[in-house]
Amino acid sequence: MNNKLGKQTVKINDVGIISSAAIVGEKEGEGPLADSFDIVLPDNEWNEKTWEKTESKMQREAVKLSLTKIGLTTENVDRIFSGDLLNQCIGAAFGLRDLDIPYYGIYGACSTMVEGISLAAQVVDGGFADIAAAVTSSHFCTAERQYRNPLEYGGQRTPSAQWTVTGAGSAILKKGEGDVKVTHITAGKIVDMGVKDANNMGGAMAPAAYSTLKAHFKELNISPSEYDLIVTGDLGKIGAEILVELLQKDGIDISPNYKDCGCMIYNIEEQDVHAGASGCGCIGSVLCGHLLPLMRKKEIKRLLAVGTGALLSPTSTLQGETVPTIAHAVSLKTRE
Amino acid sequence: MNNKLGKQTVKINDVGIISSAAIVGEKEGEGPLADSFDIVLPDNEWNEKTWEKTESKMQREAVKLSLTKIGLTTENVDRIFSGDLLNQCIGAAFGLRDLDIPYYGIYGACSTMVEGISLAAQVVDGGFADIAAAVTSSHFCTAERQYRNPLEYGGQRTPSAQWTVTGAGSAILKKGEGDVKVTHITAGKIVDMGVKDANNMGGAMAPAAYSTLKAHFKELNISPSEYDLIVTGDLGKIGAEILVELLQKDGIDISPNYKDCGCMIYNIEEQDVHAGASGCGCIGSVLCGHLLPLMRKKEIKRLLAVGTGALLSPTSTLQGETVPTIAHAVSLKTRE
Repeated sequence: MNNKLGKQTVKINDVGIISSAAIVGEKEGEGPLADSFDIVLPDNEWNEKTWEKTESKMQREAVKLSLTKIGLTTENVDRIFSGDLLNQCIGAAFGLRDLDIPYYGIYGACSTMVEGISLAAQVVDGGFADIAAAVTSSHFCTAERQYRNPLEYGGQRTPSAQWTVTGAGSAILKKGEGDVKVTHITAGKIVDMGVKDANNMGGAMAPAAYSTLKAHFKELNISPSEYDLIVTGDLGKIGAEILVELLQKDGIDISPNYKDCGCMIYNIEEQDVHAGASGCGCIGSVLCGHLLPLMRKKEIKRLLAVGTGALLSPTSTLQGETVPTIAHAVSLKTRE
Repeated sequence: MNNKLGKQTVKINDVGIISSAAIVGEKEGEGPLADSFDIVLPDNEWNEKTWEKTESKMQREAVKLSLTKIGLTTENVDRIFSGDLLNQCIGAAFGLRDLDIPYYGIYGACSTMVEGISLAAQVVDGGFADIAAAVTSSHFCTAERQYRNPLEYGGQRTPSAQWTVTGAGSAILKKGEGDVKVTHITAGKIVDMGVKDANNMGGAMAPAAYSTLKAHFKELNISPSEYDLIVTGDLGKIGAEILVELLQKDGIDISPNYKDCGCMIYNIEEQDVHAGASGCGCIGSVLCGHLLPLMRKKEIKRLLAVGTGALLSPTSTLQGETVPTIAHAVSLKTRE
């Protein structure tokens, strides 16, 4: 069977998302989507000794919760696709090591949730797994420790900086079932437009989202109005504006039905998060906690979710490198 | 179509490896497999300013070379699966950013080469790509900088320590073609037996290789003699001995036809590499540079390649954590 519809886009024949769960931190629990999430942590630690252990626990509990909701256990899952922002993806490895599920580690920076769903859907649709999970997480404190400064330092943030979401999301995919069908996937190419400012991730990632969206519309020969809602992962205010403008120059107007998860999860002004939210857990928790449930209720019937990732590291920044970025897209429809 | 043969093992119907290439460093060019590799670097830098940039260049050139050999260009490749040991997998992201190939980033530590072939084979077999590439790399100097001490420090190495291979491998997969067929894949589970010594990766990873091999033999109902050769990625002398012993306790004897790539690439004693070689580039370069060409010449007809990875990070070690590990297996046969 040939499922290729274009260079980047494939069709998925019959795979659905049968469950999802999201766990977020305190700050996310004070934002406009607070009521969407399954668990809001009481503090940054959640009874763990280090923030990294907390992040791992969030991944593990998100997986378990997404399974419990539909009466399944980890034994029912054939493959798990997971990754996160931490060096060597330890959020995933340590979080999921006790689950006894065959594991494929992935790294797509903040595009990881959508990369995971993309690969899980292809593996399930191809008959290589009956049930697969896609999981990711981020934690404000682990990300600051690793990418920026010790929290105790209390450094000032630039206006273009984004706030890393403390959150984890888990989605369970199965062949032939689920109220929400995965219909198409568009794989992203690495895009690097020469942005060197590691504090302007939205600006750096917008061209990757533009590239993937353009390929998606062209290869499927559809317009943005095909969707009730198009979301990007974590472009924030600055990146989202750039994306809309870039597409407009090509005569593609997404503005009537476009939102960025990085602008949805916080009250940007009141919560003082500058350009918005970022992190694997941003689209991870918004998709798994807010958007997929809305689709199950048929309040959204056609959704295009675009995960956006900045593939830099502190080492590459120190070496004067620019920021390579990527965006992966999954097209979701409620089952008729 | 259902391709599941067991919890961890699937069959691949008709995908072959149509080309491969390997690039290695100076030290690997002085080892017993020197003549196998396509390019041996003249020094650690290869005209780049930093070792990280060198590692990226190795990945990029390995991909190009594996394509040039069969008259293809990057335009012919639908998907590329790649990752490496560096924080945020910058070897892959920066190495492959100019290739314009839809990219899925993966992280399996030193199991990355086999994880990449596993996912590429499933995506191609499922009809989601015509041609896919699996790529990885490691570099002694980037790994030391990141995981251990500055090279200038000249630290002593423990007897159980392994030497990170400077090397990159690229394999090109296509449906219905290629002298070497991918016949089965066994996905690994994360295994953590409580080893805390970050200088004994072989010892930590052996139980993961044991777990995956046991599942592979059981789910396919075959014995080790099914293969002309079984190789593991980088268990080194210590890990390889433990693996043989663990399987023997279950009545499975791999010793007649088993080798570890970490014991093959160097003259262990003369080259002073203590317990052997390690790194994504170990099985990456040995498989793509040495073993796949031997299969094309039909000197090996049935090969089981088991990539082994230690999913720790310096942060997890500092936090007193143990070492979670994983092993992925691909079964390869020459086309009749």
